[in-house]
Amino acid sequence: MSSSIQKVAIDLGDRSYDILIGRGLIGASEHFQRLGFKGHALIVTNETVAPLYAQALRQTLEAVHRRVDMVVLPDGEAFKQWDTLNLIFNALLERACDRKTVLYALGGGVVGDMTGFAAASYMRGVDYVQVPTTLLAQVDSSVGGKTAINHPMGKNMIGAFYQPRLVVADLATLDTLPQRELSAGLAEVIKYGPIADAAFLDWVEAHVDALMQRDESALAYAVKRSCELKAQVVGKDERESGLRAILNFGHTFGHAIEAGMGYGAWLHGEAVGTGMLMATDLSMRLGLVDASLARRIEQVVARAGLPLKGPDLPAARYLDLMRVDKKAEAGEIRFVLLDGAGRAVMKSAPDALVAEVIESRTAR
Amino acid sequence: MSSSIQKVAIDLGDRSYDILIGRGLIGASEHFQRLGFKGHALIVTNETVAPLYAQALRQTLEAVHRRVDMVVLPDGEAFKQWDTLNLIFNALLERACDRKTVLYALGGGVVGDMTGFAAASYMRGVDYVQVPTTLLAQVDSSVGGKTAINHPMGKNMIGAFYQPRLVVADLATLDTLPQRELSAGLAEVIKYGPIADAAFLDWVEAHVDALMQRDESALAYAVKRSCELKAQVVGKDERESGLRAILNFGHTFGHAIEAGMGYGAWLHGEAVGTGMLMATDLSMRLGLVDASLARRIEQVVARAGLPLKGPDLPAARYLDLMRVDKKAEAGEIRFVLLDGAGRAVMKSAPDALVAEVIESRTAR
Ligand SMILES: NC(=O)c1ccc[n+]([C@@H]2O[C@H](COP(=O)([O-])OP(=O)(O)OC[C@H]3O[C@@H](n4cnc5c(N)ncnc54)[C@H](O)[C@@H]3O)[C@@H](O)[C@H]2O)c1
Ligand SMILES: NC(=O)c1ccc[n+]([C@@H]2O[C@H](COP(=O)([O-])OP(=O)(O)OC[C@H]3O[C@@H](n4cnc5c(N)ncnc54)[C@H](O)[C@@H]3O)[C@@H](O)[C@H]2O)c1
Ligand SMILES: [Zn+2]
Ligand SMILES: [Zn+2]
Repeated sequence: MSSSIQKVAIDLGDRSYDILIGRGLIGASEHFQRLGFKGHALIVTNETVAPLYAQALRQTLEAVHRRVDMVVLPDGEAFKQWDTLNLIFNALLERACDRKTVLYALGGGVVGDMTGFAAASYMRGVDYVQVPTTLLAQVDSSVGGKTAINHPMGKNMIGAFYQPRLVVADLATLDTLPQRELSAGLAEVIKYGPIADAAFLDWVEAHVDALMQRDESALAYAVKRSCELKAQVVGKDERESGLRAILNFGHTFGHAIEAGMGYGAWLHGEAVGTGMLMATDLSMRLGLVDASLARRIEQVVARAGLPLKGPDLPAARYLDLMRVDKKAEAGEIRFVLLDGAGRAVMKSAPDALVAEVIESRTAR
Repeated sequence: MSSSIQKVAIDLGDRSYDILIGRGLIGASEHFQRLGFKGHALIVTNETVAPLYAQALRQTLEAVHRRVDMVVLPDGEAFKQWDTLNLIFNALLERACDRKTVLYALGGGVVGDMTGFAAASYMRGVDYVQVPTTLLAQVDSSVGGKTAINHPMGKNMIGAFYQPRLVVADLATLDTLPQRELSAGLAEVIKYGPIADAAFLDWVEAHVDALMQRDESALAYAVKRSCELKAQVVGKDERESGLRAILNFGHTFGHAIEAGMGYGAWLHGEAVGTGMLMATDLSMRLGLVDASLARRIEQVVARAGLPLKGPDLPAARYLDLMRVDKKAEAGEIRFVLLDGAGRAVMKSAPDALVAEVIESRTAR
């Protein structure tokens, strides 16, 4: 049982749900029980996470559902595509799962995004629960209802806005997370301060070393505050017509890094970390932030063990990749930039200026 | 230009839209113009429909969108699956289409269902317009926001509830429709009377010959009234939690026929036609309707040129196929049955009784 459980309530009308944060939650059936599910459960997980946590979750869910099945996907961003998604559909159809079936996403953002999209699409929509096991998934991808798979021509191009019924972030799962993945998750934690809450940037600055050492109370607060900040934004703009786009701070550059290197070479969070520095540089060159804020962000990113420079691709390649990215409308790239600490703005910028930023921020 | 245009308003809050019905609508840009679209247009159609109507639609849309592209899919229910859907995504991504892109589904229910699901999923949702060119699509599939593709293990298993922005039913397109397809569409027209409007069953009885001869004013009324009746039901239950299921009258049996014969051997409407007779027989055996109503429905189905008997598969096979169908919850098949003329009820029935119905309604 977890000694202290934090709760963040996501208020989206009839699609509202809770995020629970605490140690040992996977072993506690009462939180799942409360939802009153009547159908089968299908745990969706991957080859890495299954041996670590699937048995515990299955046992818990057996007290909730009259039948619990499992499908184990191959591990990796490269598998976040149709063929893997179809393994979930196959599993559902082989077991004649009906519309009352509940999918449980046990894993990182890849498993979460695919499970969410499978839930959105199976019979035009069944319930799902997120059980995120990476820091990135706990602070970001499991919250907000964005689901997707990749297409060879672009990341997250095919998906749905589809909210989970519950998010259960068990801090104990972070014990087994490789350090590189922890750093990648910290990139998304760091993101929230500059765009939405200057005080949280201060807190992260003061606690980044504790977070790197997996201090539990620091992690608990980082997850909770990140979810709160994300929830604030998503609550105002569920379908990303405007405001929500600020959560993509660092992501336009980041997606170009990921796509340019082939998905999986860089971790999503690593690309976002470097992407935030590029976006901050661009903000500075546009006169929106001063050098001291840029330096602070760079130092936090560095202490979180994240790369400070992007891969050595020509600036023109970055620009092409960003133009195909979904934030580009009618060929014009809209960047999420900073306007001081704790405030984001959407802006386009001259290609030449963007190219300068990229050139000074790539490893050559 | 069309002399008389009928309009059916579908009231679904911020997802409301109009259905326009009339001759020559594909050639009239003002109806599309009114939506104020700002992005590119992608016409999705198939090899059969493209040579007939794509040029006219393209010309019309060129007055509305600054760029109009087209993707031509192979024709047939067998292609209503992922690989074909992906041709739409490829077309969108090759042209760097953004979130403001509008998809136009020009064709029958297959093109409509796939285009709708592509629109629901591309970048997590772009706008789409239905331009249905079969009777079935005009009276049924283009209305109500159900979109889907098939899975080898089940029909329409993967999809979304996603409303179009407009439906434009050009009656002139029905001129080129093969007679067999016209009959298949009439099955869905016939459906609405027994489940929702006894007076409409009377009207269809009186006009089925005129409809078979493509009398334009009869077709216009049939399309309009069918859309109104469907809209009434969908308006009360957009996501098929209950009432909406009555629209599946004949479909549980029908899907078993389609799946049992391999998709495409029987037309959807043909299977629904026979399926309605099976469901009516079952209603009669359960004492819900009398023989005279059953006879009336059978005669209308016969005069619409639809098969009166299902394919010669064992009753046990029908039952298995119906159990995997999405209307089966926890292994129990829920049938849409009639409770007098103009009233539907959801009910299960003993397997033995269902088997008797099937045996007396299969060609051997
Ligand atoms: N939906 C959203 O809003 C959103 C937001 C951000 C990112 N994302 C997506 O999330 C994905 C990245 O998520 P991620 O960083 O969690 O990657 P991931 O899911 O690939 O997980 C990273 C690695 O850690 C392993 N792992 C997971 N939990 C573990 C544990 N407890 N112990 C040991 N190993 C564990 C995984 O198997 C994997 O190898 C990307 O596809 C990205 O597009 C989505
Ligand atoms: N979404 C829904 O609510 C819903 C409801 C009912 C049916 N459906 C789906 O609709 C599909 C059946 O639709 P359908 O009956 O329109 O089949 P279809 O789309 O296959 O069209 C039938 C045939 O007619 C051709 N055609 C289309 N328009 C023509 C025209 N004007 N002239 C000549 N030929 C033309 C097509 O190319 C095709 O060969 C099924 O996949 C079914 O699952 C969906
Ligand atoms: Zn991210
Ligand atoms: Zn139908």
